[in-house]
Amino acid sequence: MTKRRRPRSSTGPDEPPALALTLGDPAGIGPEILLKALRSPELRRLCIPVVVGDRGVLSRTAARLGLPDPFSGRRPRAVLVDVGLAPARLRPGRPSAAGGRVAMRCIQAAARLAESGAVAGVVTAPISKRALSLAGYRQWGHTEILARLTGARRAVMLFWSPRLSVTLLSIHVPLRRAIAAVTKRAVLEHLLFVNREWRRLFGARPRIAVAGLNPHAGEGGLMGSEDAKQIAPAVASARRRGVRVRGPFPPDTIFRRASQGEFDLVVAMHHDQGLIPMKLFDPARAVNVTLGLPWVRTSVDHGTAYDIAGRGVADPANLIEAVRLAARLARVRRGSA
Amino acid sequence: MTKRRRPRSSTGPDEPPALALTLGDPAGIGPEILLKALRSPELRRLCIPVVVGDRGVLSRTAARLGLPDPFSGRRPRAVLVDVGLAPARLRPGRPSAAGGRVAMRCIQAAARLAESGAVAGVVTAPISKRALSLAGYRQWGHTEILARLTGARRAVMLFWSPRLSVTLLSIHVPLRRAIAAVTKRAVLEHLLFVNREWRRLFGARPRIAVAGLNPHAGEGGLMGSEDAKQIAPAVASARRRGVRVRGPFPPDTIFRRASQGEFDLVVAMHHDQGLIPMKLFDPARAVNVTLGLPWVRTSVDHGTAYDIAGRGVADPANLIEAVRLAARLARVRRGSA
Repeated sequence: MTKRRRPRSSTGPDEPPALALTLGDPAGIGPEILLKALRSPELRRLCIPVVVGDRGVLSRTAARLGLPDPFSGRRPRAVLVDVGLAPARLRPGRPSAAGGRVAMRCIQAAARLAESGAVAGVVTAPISKRALSLAGYRQWGHTEILARLTGARRAVMLFWSPRLSVTLLSIHVPLRRAIAAVTKRAVLEHLLFVNREWRRLFGARPRIAVAGLNPHAGEGGLMGSEDAKQIAPAVASARRRGVRVRGPFPPDTIFRRASQGEFDLVVAMHHDQGLIPMKLFDPARAVNVTLGLPWVRTSVDHGTAYDIAGRGVADPANLIEAVRLAARLARVRRGSA
Repeated sequence: MTKRRRPRSSTGPDEPPALALTLGDPAGIGPEILLKALRSPELRRLCIPVVVGDRGVLSRTAARLGLPDPFSGRRPRAVLVDVGLAPARLRPGRPSAAGGRVAMRCIQAAARLAESGAVAGVVTAPISKRALSLAGYRQWGHTEILARLTGARRAVMLFWSPRLSVTLLSIHVPLRRAIAAVTKRAVLEHLLFVNREWRRLFGARPRIAVAGLNPHAGEGGLMGSEDAKQIAPAVASARRRGVRVRGPFPPDTIFRRASQGEFDLVVAMHHDQGLIPMKLFDPARAVNVTLGLPWVRTSVDHGTAYDIAGRGVADPANLIEAVRLAARLARVRRGSA
């Protein structure tokens, strides 16, 4: 058999995929966890790391914390794409317009690398809403920024961990409005989208559980009508279209059931219904994945942690988990999983 | 120093407290977990167990499952208060009117024992809504039944586990109505009540966290107004009255913070906000406690499990945990904690 060439993959089927790792906000813990993660032999087995950052920020961080410089020496541990923007006066722990510009430039450069096929995916370090806003940007979240950069019509955040994964029907809206957004149409569209994107990313059909909206999923209408009138018909319709989905389930027990292996994904009806269990269950291993982009993108599930930035105490474990998942998804995409 | 006599305690200050353990629904796993728990040497060190049940049901269960009869022999392991009502035809796994009557009679007898001071508290096994309804009762939950039996004006369920405890501002109402119930007055009354009852039960002032209602606790009004307009003033008012309370906190992270030791209790704004984390975090050790009764009452945090009743596979661990907490609270009450 001849090997089929896959033009969008820069590496052979047995080599680890190249992944862009962004700096994140230069004043947050991003530079530190990047440098620490690059010391991990596992990370270097998982991927060919292409750091998209700022040479000055990374060198100063390495020097300050006594970490090795991964880009120099005879066998550099990583490739650096240097956006070369950050002023030397940038201080750890302080959001600034200059920091916001560096963070955005790194995201843009990483997206171009992925677009061109030079890397199979992008893993992002945390950015700061405040810094991006100071720099004059109007989009402050990775998901929205990446959707705009790639022209994706729809992008949905998947909260993934080894034993529990969640998507949210609505995000940053008051709970009252989140309830009003639980319509048959919205639930059905969400289900069809996450089912399709999960299959594309993970290479298998997900077993999806839909959480109810009301206590006990409404208990036959005694505790609310949306479960029976909006969610159940959407689930039935999605099933007719081949989606492996069940529900609505009582919200208080479905996350545990899923975490025990009964489902791959729980679709939550609002922000906190899904994020309370995600942030309680296994937060060190929770990773964000963007569904709907043309290439793989994962992210740490924590913030810039300005309060500890520059102190050398930040833990790279979550970033390594994000790389682990990105590498796995990149292999699925090129068919060598 | 002379020892002060405490008339409502049937045992001396160094002896374990007497606790009534109810049978629960006779067709559920109650009889089995009771018999299994009574084999535990720890349980017999923790309390003097007074089983309030039905001799026939317990004997048949013991014979069927090959468990020792704890009420006979030269050194019986427990005292039995026999309500003597259950017909021999009662089958495991089936709710029935006869079963509902037995379950209710056990609760009533246990409440009388506690009222008289013969026992320091009551630990209840699971009952069946369906069986109680078939038996013609209108109150189907232990909390409501016990509130009526004791004339308590207000009774609130505390969901307790060693590292996370939760109360709910509202319970079995549609989420829309739960939102409308988040008023300054309701939050303040709840806080004053749970603070007072926790102190009485645990002998110390609780450090209380109040969860917000909306994502990010409203984020300054961007995602809903109830957090700032209803919850925050109630918290401020409770603090002025000496309650150690803070909040409203973003719901998605406050349960984890509490579980790490920052707070003793999280007050959740609706049913699933509090029960999703409780049922995910440490369910094997989660116990229910009724706040507002004149005596100690704890309960298992699981149901009748009709699907496995009579098969010998039910686990008594949660019942033993409920006894452990009841014994601790009974010692607090008599001042020998």
